[in-house]
Amino acid sequence: MHQLRKPYLLFLGDVDLKSDAKTAFGLRDWCREDVMGEWSLPAATVSLDLPRFSPAEAAARGARSIVIGVAAVGGVLPANWLPELAAALDAGMDVVSGLHSRLGAFPVLVEAARRGGGRLLDVRHSDQVFAAGTGRKRSGRRVLTVGTDCALGKKYTALALARALAAQGVPATFRATGQTGIMIAGAGVAVDAVIADFIAGAAEALSPDNAPDHWDVIEGQGALFHPAYAGVTLGLVHGSQPDALVLCHDPSRTTIEGYPDCPIPDLQHAVDRYVEAARLTNRGVRCIGVSINSCSLADGAWRDYAHGLSARLGLPVVDPMRGGVGPLAQALLQP
Amino acid sequence: MHQLRKPYLLFLGDVDLKSDAKTAFGLRDWCREDVMGEWSLPAATVSLDLPRFSPAEAAARGARSIVIGVAAVGGVLPANWLPELAAALDAGMDVVSGLHSRLGAFPVLVEAARRGGGRLLDVRHSDQVFAAGTGRKRSGRRVLTVGTDCALGKKYTALALARALAAQGVPATFRATGQTGIMIAGAGVAVDAVIADFIAGAAEALSPDNAPDHWDVIEGQGALFHPAYAGVTLGLVHGSQPDALVLCHDPSRTTIEGYPDCPIPDLQHAVDRYVEAARLTNRGVRCIGVSINSCSLADGAWRDYAHGLSARLGLPVVDPMRGGVGPLAQALLQP
Repeated sequence: MHQLRKPYLLFLGDVDLKSDAKTAFGLRDWCREDVMGEWSLPAATVSLDLPRFSPAEAAARGARSIVIGVAAVGGVLPANWLPELAAALDAGMDVVSGLHSRLGAFPVLVEAARRGGGRLLDVRHSDQVFAAGTGRKRSGRRVLTVGTDCALGKKYTALALARALAAQGVPATFRATGQTGIMIAGAGVAVDAVIADFIAGAAEALSPDNAPDHWDVIEGQGALFHPAYAGVTLGLVHGSQPDALVLCHDPSRTTIEGYPDCPIPDLQHAVDRYVEAARLTNRGVRCIGVSINSCSLADGAWRDYAHGLSARLGLPVVDPMRGGVGPLAQALLQP
Repeated sequence: MHQLRKPYLLFLGDVDLKSDAKTAFGLRDWCREDVMGEWSLPAATVSLDLPRFSPAEAAARGARSIVIGVAAVGGVLPANWLPELAAALDAGMDVVSGLHSRLGAFPVLVEAARRGGGRLLDVRHSDQVFAAGTGRKRSGRRVLTVGTDCALGKKYTALALARALAAQGVPATFRATGQTGIMIAGAGVAVDAVIADFIAGAAEALSPDNAPDHWDVIEGQGALFHPAYAGVTLGLVHGSQPDALVLCHDPSRTTIEGYPDCPIPDLQHAVDRYVEAARLTNRGVRCIGVSINSCSLADGAWRDYAHGLSARLGLPVVDPMRGGVGPLAQALLQP
């Protein structure tokens, strides 16, 4: 289980495309209170419009981690970023990275971490040893976001739902299973990075016993219908033993992204398959609603789509970006 | 992908329980032509009834690997086995282990491997980097054994089926996905040991493009209905893109072994779920038969059971230990 130290200084490297800074924008939007400011190299043209602090300044003001908030070509940490990261380590901060490159592969960072006492945290990787799943029923309640594909709103929906529950005074914890989610939450497990035998076990560890009325809102991964990642999804479903599922979908997709021969399933079929899979470890599971990424639809088209889908499935249909997830929170809390 | 060097010297340590030497017996029975002999410590009371050779003798006669063929308490390599393994390394052989302990954690073995030029091969672990699954249809034909639980005959059935096909002159290759299978085949991937994101990709790499009439007979792992390991199973199903499935089952089990709250599914349901899962990457997949581990049944009961099950499912039902897998090979080769 990754455990990060906040507050963060967000590092943007020399980014010149907003889309490459998705992680930094996500952190700014979802845990603004944990973000002290931003820092970047002179060549950077993208900004988060946050106060700028050098690593040394940020550390002096209490920042505990510098977080790499941008993508790098091929996932490889560029050499010209190293001095700023080393400066943060020398000031006693941790470095948090979601890149493919492991921070420990750079001697200059290893040395600086040794000097400053900070840690090198690769949230894309998982070096923890987990036990195999037990299937034992845990106390507390759990909702898992699942999807018809990758990258269509499972993290966003889970974050919005956890926030909506908290706003109603319901005890709820967002449980992160991917790198950006882990950075936002400050803790979590990259379930796709664990040894295959322990996917379900890692998911069990992520969401331990809790108070009977507490909700874990668990970030889903992949899709049961994805030719590369379905195994991760199924293990996460089993280990999460969810009481409730929210199905996430993007109506503009007809095939799995990057897999043109793999059609997106019918939504009723998807609901049925997920509920059936989840019943293995929680016979009381139900799908409580659908979360749509509707950015491809104009307002009228979205209203018609949501209305029709809701009638067809008999479930509330929301877009968290268009009206929020209130109906999902309400459905979750219905006995 | 593990690639082992044959012939083998099988090492039995100080084993005193036949069941702890399951791996060694499996190797003797399934690749006798690759096994030069056995070796053990004086305290051992179990023998394979093979010629005994010390590591140095075996190496002089051409043995290329010493294979640890016994289980160790907690999966930990006992210190008193090290001198014999080091002797094999000093004689230029590889050491092959399926234990949890990594051979590289023992400096005496690392040193001996350096001196002798041999390798330390942990077939339980996988240090290879695989690509994510592509779902791309590969040439050649594939059959995968699947099951209602772990440890009920998926490896045995696949080995028997590969042998039956070869006996009929059909080009066929057994593809190993677990440690004993890898030792028997001399190659393979421990799919449960790869990083979760790459289960399907590893299965794709295990069974590459082949001649149109060639059959890969792929060893299954786990079960779709297993609360700990279903993710591995699903990724293996997707990456294998099987044309045919054989369902393996033990009628004496009513719940998943070690999971008393998890019932074994009805066999028609199991067939339906596996076929549906496999259709994601091969729409032409069919289940061609059932392989039963019937050791709990007397002869008459077995005949009645097989007859009834075959009529109910409309599929051939065999026990490889009781009459062989001929009907499965026949069903596989039907157009």
